[in-house]
Amino acid sequence: MTTKKEKLVSESKTVMTELIMPNDTNPLGNLMGGYLMRWMDICGAIAAAKHCGANVVTASVDHVSFESAIRLGEVITLVANVTRAFNTSVEVFVEVTASEMGGGNERKCNHAYLSFVSIDPETRKPREVPAIRPVTGEEKKLYEGASRRRELRLILSGRMKPSDAIEIKTFFSEL
Amino acid sequence: MTTKKEKLVSESKTVMTELIMPNDTNPLGNLMGGYLMRWMDICGAIAAAKHCGANVVTASVDHVSFESAIRLGEVITLVANVTRAFNTSVEVFVEVTASEMGGGNERKCNHAYLSFVSIDPETRKPREVPAIRPVTGEEKKLYEGASRRRELRLILSGRMKPSDAIEIKTFFSEL
Amino acid sequence: MTTKKEKLVSESKTVMTELIMPNDTNPLGNLMGGYLMRWMDICGAIAAAKHCGANVVTASVDHVSFESAIRLGEVITLVANVTRAFNTSVEVFVEVTASEMGGGNERKCNHAYLSFVSIDPETRKPREVPAIRPVTGEEKKLYEGASRRRELRLILSGRMKPSDAIEIKTFFSEL
Amino acid sequence: MTTKKEKLVSESKTVMTELIMPNDTNPLGNLMGGYLMRWMDICGAIAAAKHCGANVVTASVDHVSFESAIRLGEVITLVANVTRAFNTSVEVFVEVTASEMGGGNERKCNHAYLSFVSIDPETRKPREVPAIRPVTGEEKKLYEGASRRRELRLILSGRMKPSDAIEIKTFFSEL
Amino acid sequence: MTTKKEKLVSESKTVMTELIMPNDTNPLGNLMGGYLMRWMDICGAIAAAKHCGANVVTASVDHVSFESAIRLGEVITLVANVTRAFNTSVEVFVEVTASEMGGGNERKCNHAYLSFVSIDPETRKPREVPAIRPVTGEEKKLYEGASRRRELRLILSGRMKPSDAIEIKTFFSEL
Amino acid sequence: MTTKKEKLVSESKTVMTELIMPNDTNPLGNLMGGYLMRWMDICGAIAAAKHCGANVVTASVDHVSFESAIRLGEVITLVANVTRAFNTSVEVFVEVTASEMGGGNERKCNHAYLSFVSIDPETRKPREVPAIRPVTGEEKKLYEGASRRRELRLILSGRMKPSDAIEIKTFFSEL
Repeated sequence: MTTKKEKLVSESKTVMTELIMPNDTNPLGNLMGGYLMRWMDICGAIAAAKHCGANVVTASVDHVSFESAIRLGEVITLVANVTRAFNTSVEVFVEVTASEMGGGNERKCNHAYLSFVSIDPETRKPREVPAIRPVTGEEKKLYEGASRRRELRLILSGRMKPSDAIEIKTFFSEL
Repeated sequence: MTTKKEKLVSESKTVMTELIMPNDTNPLGNLMGGYLMRWMDICGAIAAAKHCGANVVTASVDHVSFESAIRLGEVITLVANVTRAFNTSVEVFVEVTASEMGGGNERKCNHAYLSFVSIDPETRKPREVPAIRPVTGEEKKLYEGASRRRELRLILSGRMKPSDAIEIKTFFSEL
Repeated sequence: MTTKKEKLVSESKTVMTELIMPNDTNPLGNLMGGYLMRWMDICGAIAAAKHCGANVVTASVDHVSFESAIRLGEVITLVANVTRAFNTSVEVFVEVTASEMGGGNERKCNHAYLSFVSIDPETRKPREVPAIRPVTGEEKKLYEGASRRRELRLILSGRMKPSDAIEIKTFFSEL
Repeated sequence: MTTKKEKLVSESKTVMTELIMPNDTNPLGNLMGGYLMRWMDICGAIAAAKHCGANVVTASVDHVSFESAIRLGEVITLVANVTRAFNTSVEVFVEVTASEMGGGNERKCNHAYLSFVSIDPETRKPREVPAIRPVTGEEKKLYEGASRRRELRLILSGRMKPSDAIEIKTFFSEL
Repeated sequence: MTTKKEKLVSESKTVMTELIMPNDTNPLGNLMGGYLMRWMDICGAIAAAKHCGANVVTASVDHVSFESAIRLGEVITLVANVTRAFNTSVEVFVEVTASEMGGGNERKCNHAYLSFVSIDPETRKPREVPAIRPVTGEEKKLYEGASRRRELRLILSGRMKPSDAIEIKTFFSEL
Repeated sequence: MTTKKEKLVSESKTVMTELIMPNDTNPLGNLMGGYLMRWMDICGAIAAAKHCGANVVTASVDHVSFESAIRLGEVITLVANVTRAFNTSVEVFVEVTASEMGGGNERKCNHAYLSFVSIDPETRKPREVPAIRPVTGEEKKLYEGASRRRELRLILSGRMKPSDAIEIKTFFSEL
């Protein structure tokens, strides 16, 4: 079914804009972290589905930090794209910026790496995904970091022994 | 407060992507028209606010047709930008495309012109908006049509006599 | 299936009352235009479905102006009824009033004409709708204006040439 | 502040129409009881506020039975009005009917008596409510039953001893 | 299908915690009664379903009083368990406590008795439920009160004549 | 303001139960990952606030894997408690189990570590939190792992150099 062998990173780019409404905020008037993660997941899933040409399910969300408070009435923009394709899954990078509704105080707020599995609509089983071709320097850098992040994911979910994590070791010695 | 005298059309461009969830659909499994209009209004308001550098309120929504059914689980993309600035208000053009989550069956679904009034945060009264400079051919065409659409709006809301509607007369004779 | 040949306008009358909750409002504390349109669409759809004796889909929403701000905690009442039946579609008039929860400051806020297409539950295709009989003077006036509004709708959605719009020409010369 | 000494039952009449959406239903496709009660509470609160000319808070909801299942895509109509005014509170009767969207299978589904307390906007304390004048036979019957229902409410919430419940005793001997 | 003949009260215990968000509150900033009842219904339904080993539908909600206002940003905890099993239905007791988010001002707010009918997933008809065994003194007390509450329910919904209500008569003479 | 010097782990325990409704699911009928994370964040925040005796904001969410699909109509239970208190922040462990509504197919689905910062209601700045005392073996194990997880968090958010991460090095050599 997946006839196209290779796609560009830019083909999966997805932009989402949301206005922070009262019910998205905690009693201090700030966007709740979990609500932001819900949007990151949806934006990432749409990017992943574009690359896979099929519905996807979330496999994992990597570490997310919340550094800048986002206020009621502000606008957030999420930009997501696939960074790398594995066998039946893809890694997606999602970046969040916020600003006042009139555009003031624009700032980067968060980013996260999520992984999604492509699902065959008939069998409901994972299915192969197209390869991806990074073009720009930034795309290549994210592409290369993906295997290290994947190893960390496998270790953290208990599916890989740290002793087998070749990339991670490099990461800890290089950084 | 509005120090910048003139802005480009492209500065207000706003992209919104939404996944159609069960509660957005009618018993036939199609996105309800009113839910789409709610998103068109929010997307348009964010574009208007970017141009105005301030919060805005919706003044009017022009005629909207719903020609292509949008299904549960599909993805819609709304793109909005200001087409023209008047004294204290702007006209915004919003265009909606839909596709399956995996990208298939992409098609244009709807478009609408909405007008918004810029609101001063202190006085809560309308305030002046920056001028706009259309650059591309498409931007210029939308810019020029805006005064005709504004006349029609004023007639339909009972604030202009048809005999004063110079642009509309041209429209009916030209089209 | 539609055995009843003709229905009265009053048979489709639908009344909806809603309390404006925090999430319906913008950062200025006013009901957002798009949320109001969502309710107008639902109220109109229920009125249309009553007349058609079947599910309906929104075909179009005519120009809507937002003149009076509606505040958090206020109550809105929507009243809708079919104004005219065409072959497989109907036009519905929806009127919105608002007041404080205790009843004070009652005022007319908006109105709109929407059109809906009746859908056959089996084939999911448009199906014929019963004729309508206007009785009161107001009902007759709305019934008669419906063909002019329909012409404008067809022109604005690019399905009729202005030169063929006989009713509209009359409208512009009469008003 | 409550200058009007007496109001008619009909002045508080409130009609609410709602379309049953996917998120209102349980896994069997029926409207969940708690969602219906939320609407009964809002509809009753609006009726109470109209009579009191002020915001109100829910004091109690009497026994509610759910006899007829309401399905996804059906339409419910709630009609509420004040039945009796006490010192700072009112009793409201809410009745729910359901039908298919096209009007078929219309049936009574539920009813409930709720009581609301009128709240002074300044002090946030209970305040006196206007008296009520029942006119029709039905209104008078509901008005008279209200003191019996109030006794039962006071007993069930532990604020009256059964031995003091004169009306309830009559009810049990009469019924 | 219901192979287990008897269950303990504790097996159906269900705990639900909710944070009061802006859209749950009325214009005075208090949790609306109807929203609380929606949660009581869901919590009760989950407890009932655990006992029945099957989906359930709400049959009735007994009298509920709202004595303590619950504020925006507070946390509520609902605890529900089955008190008694009848032929195809169960009675559930739900108790609500509230506190500030930091744990201060903890207090009991509400309680209610609800009844649910167990539904066979195939036939969608009521089906037999397992018996229940109360163990603690509190469980036994609730178990015994259940038949009296059931009589009151049947009287209030018009399905039992007061003259047949043996338990209720005892209740009124004892209390 | 925080007068209590030390709290037990059990004092922050928070249990949340949710029924998966249609709008929580993707087109395949499974709970969307982002919706689960929203609940994990709220449940964790309530546990953190109980320990801190104050409102909190989410600082970070560690890696989350989604291994077991959760279906429409299933019930999830989240259990959260504070594992360790730092200067102005706490780490919370949240564990999610799912089952059919009737209790069948109960299984562990997810877990995550989140960190929250305690906020002073007056100054809106971080404030000191009480110390925590782990009692059981499980509590002690989570308490001890917390400093290693904290180092990983600091590295992943770019606030610590890997060469300074003493605990992490131990983790990679031990595991």
